[in-house]
Amino acid sequence: MPTITVEGPPIDIGRKRELVKRLTEVAIEVYKIEHITVLIRENPPENVGVNGQLIADRKRPK
Amino acid sequence: MPTITVEGPPIDIGRKRELVKRLTEVAIEVYKIEHITVLIRENPPENVGVNGQLIADRKRPK
Amino acid sequence: MPTITVEGPPIDIGRKRELVKRLTEVAIEVYKIEHITVLIRENPPENVGVNGQLIADRKRPK
Amino acid sequence: MPTITVEGPPIDIGRKRELVKRLTEVAIEVYKIEHITVLIRENPPENVGVNGQLIADRKRPK
Amino acid sequence: MPTITVEGPPIDIGRKRELVKRLTEVAIEVYKIEHITVLIRENPPENVGVNGQLIADRKRPK
Amino acid sequence: MPTITVEGPPIDIGRKRELVKRLTEVAIEVYKIEHITVLIRENPPENVGVNGQLIADRKRPK
Repeated sequence: MPTITVEGPPIDIGRKRELVKRLTEVAIEVYKIEHITVLIRENPPENVGVNGQLIADRKRPK
Repeated sequence: MPTITVEGPPIDIGRKRELVKRLTEVAIEVYKIEHITVLIRENPPENVGVNGQLIADRKRPK
Repeated sequence: MPTITVEGPPIDIGRKRELVKRLTEVAIEVYKIEHITVLIRENPPENVGVNGQLIADRKRPK
Repeated sequence: MPTITVEGPPIDIGRKRELVKRLTEVAIEVYKIEHITVLIRENPPENVGVNGQLIADRKRPK
Repeated sequence: MPTITVEGPPIDIGRKRELVKRLTEVAIEVYKIEHITVLIRENPPENVGVNGQLIADRKRPK
Repeated sequence: MPTITVEGPPIDIGRKRELVKRLTEVAIEVYKIEHITVLIRENPPENVGVNGQLIADRKRPK
């Protein structure tokens, strides 16, 4: 601990690397604790709903 | 926020659509807050244990 | 399982009762599974940030 | 409830079976409650960071 | 990692101590990994619903 | 979404403010998505175990 869990859309490994590196830096500075774990969860657009609608269903216009 | 996370077995996209729509309606009415996120997690039967037994191991009779 | 976790602001017991009753009804209909657990988490406004700002810090105008 | 969630690396079904059986035994003895659910989450090494580095990136020497 | 999260009712510190010690032993044996974190969450009976009813509302007979 | 959850020890509101602001900046840059939610969880030392021991039980030497 601390442990940081990030729920987001799928991303490539380069972004995961950057995410882990930078979130860890922030956590170390704020908590003054060295041991930080980061968990990245990639959620497919058909498993996430925002305002009552699946992200998979609005994909078009955006 | 609010965010609703549902841990369940795998389901098809039609049920996901219904789940997101209806859970969101309930949350809006109870919280009086518009911005609702729903996260659906699909757990394979070999990753869930109930009363000490994997769901994958009791699949037969049911 | 299924288990539904709701992350939201603090609410009174009447709303919790309604939330549990209605989310459970939806889950039973969608999953066709009887055993549903609902977990309500109440997050104080100083522990939630939206768009980089604590909810506790913007309380005024809204 | 109680529900036990285990975040770890991928494991085979034999270990899952053992994990569920034994964690459930411990929970029943400590809580004196029979109905225990265990959820196993398997995280790929490119989705977990420890001390700022992805597990996928340090795999070699270990 | 691995991290074990236990969602349950409130318990005293003696039981927490036992829970952490024993869950950790199981996890070390199954995963063959030394570094285990356990998080205990204590949920008040008015924040948990089972089968559509708050635990706080059925407390009596049981 | 994305949503970032931080499990850590209790911290004061100043640090929460900083944590939310900076984690959000990182997430916006990595995901290129504006709407970020951060949830801070404060775990009492008697509810967290590391390597089989409650943090509450080792407080002294540190």
